[in-house]
Amino acid sequence: MTSPVVQHHYPEIFAHCYGCGRMNDLGLQLKSAWEGDEVVARYTPRPEHIAIPGFVYGGLLASLIDCHAMATAAAHAVRLAGRTIGEGETPRYVTAALHVDYLKPTPLGPELVIRARVAETGKRKVVVRMTVTADGIETARGEVVAAPLPGSMG
Amino acid sequence: MTSPVVQHHYPEIFAHCYGCGRMNDLGLQLKSAWEGDEVVARYTPRPEHIAIPGFVYGGLLASLIDCHAMATAAAHAVRLAGRTIGEGETPRYVTAALHVDYLKPTPLGPELVIRARVAETGKRKVVVRMTVTADGIETARGEVVAAPLPGSMG
Repeated sequence: MTSPVVQHHYPEIFAHCYGCGRMNDLGLQLKSAWEGDEVVARYTPRPEHIAIPGFVYGGLLASLIDCHAMATAAAHAVRLAGRTIGEGETPRYVTAALHVDYLKPTPLGPELVIRARVAETGKRKVVVRMTVTADGIETARGEVVAAPLPGSMG
Repeated sequence: MTSPVVQHHYPEIFAHCYGCGRMNDLGLQLKSAWEGDEVVARYTPRPEHIAIPGFVYGGLLASLIDCHAMATAAAHAVRLAGRTIGEGETPRYVTAALHVDYLKPTPLGPELVIRARVAETGKRKVVVRMTVTADGIETARGEVVAAPLPGSMG
């Protein structure tokens, strides 16, 4: 059982992100949803998302990790407020810091699965930890610090 | 005075990267070159590289930082060998770890300038530190651990 897609419920003005905006026709349109206690996204890289022949470009992995972390922070905030995705507005977070460890080369071809949990929450930041797997093998790990969208950006 | 572009001298088999491959027509084709003691890249994001209106998507910054770090590690290795870019092969590095601090929102529009230096070198890794500026204002910092391409990937 999965929840509605987090990014489908961002306010329209914040739904243009290259990585996950539903309004960005040229972007990746990543979709993240609750699966039990994890927020999960699945994405199949395009052939052009190559690093060297046979492997996925690390910048794509960083991009997926970044957007999925923002969705996880938002999903967590909605759950903490006692709501479900789609009930009222989904808050928009921005990235304060991003860390990716590339454990092994990620094969280009299989669907990638990104699983995230909130590791830490504070008033001004949320720390999200993630794994990326391809064909069930963990190839990268991410840790992202998310912050609520500052008023100056909205 | 700048050097030849590092990525123009990667062996052709390793020149397909989405971020910096000269053979990838759909990619970003980032170009990095020595300027004095720094390796510098300039890139103007496309309109679709939006995060929220007016600002650059963090995944793009991570991608540019990633590829520019690999080029910096390669350029450094060439210089250490007493050669200049274009004399003999430019070695190809891969990313072991990537860290980006987003200091402030990066405006979408201006050309971005990424300046890098090698902070640390070991037999099996090179640490590269970078700044990203837009209109002369530093908006992000990156630290990347690069490793020589393993034989299993080549």
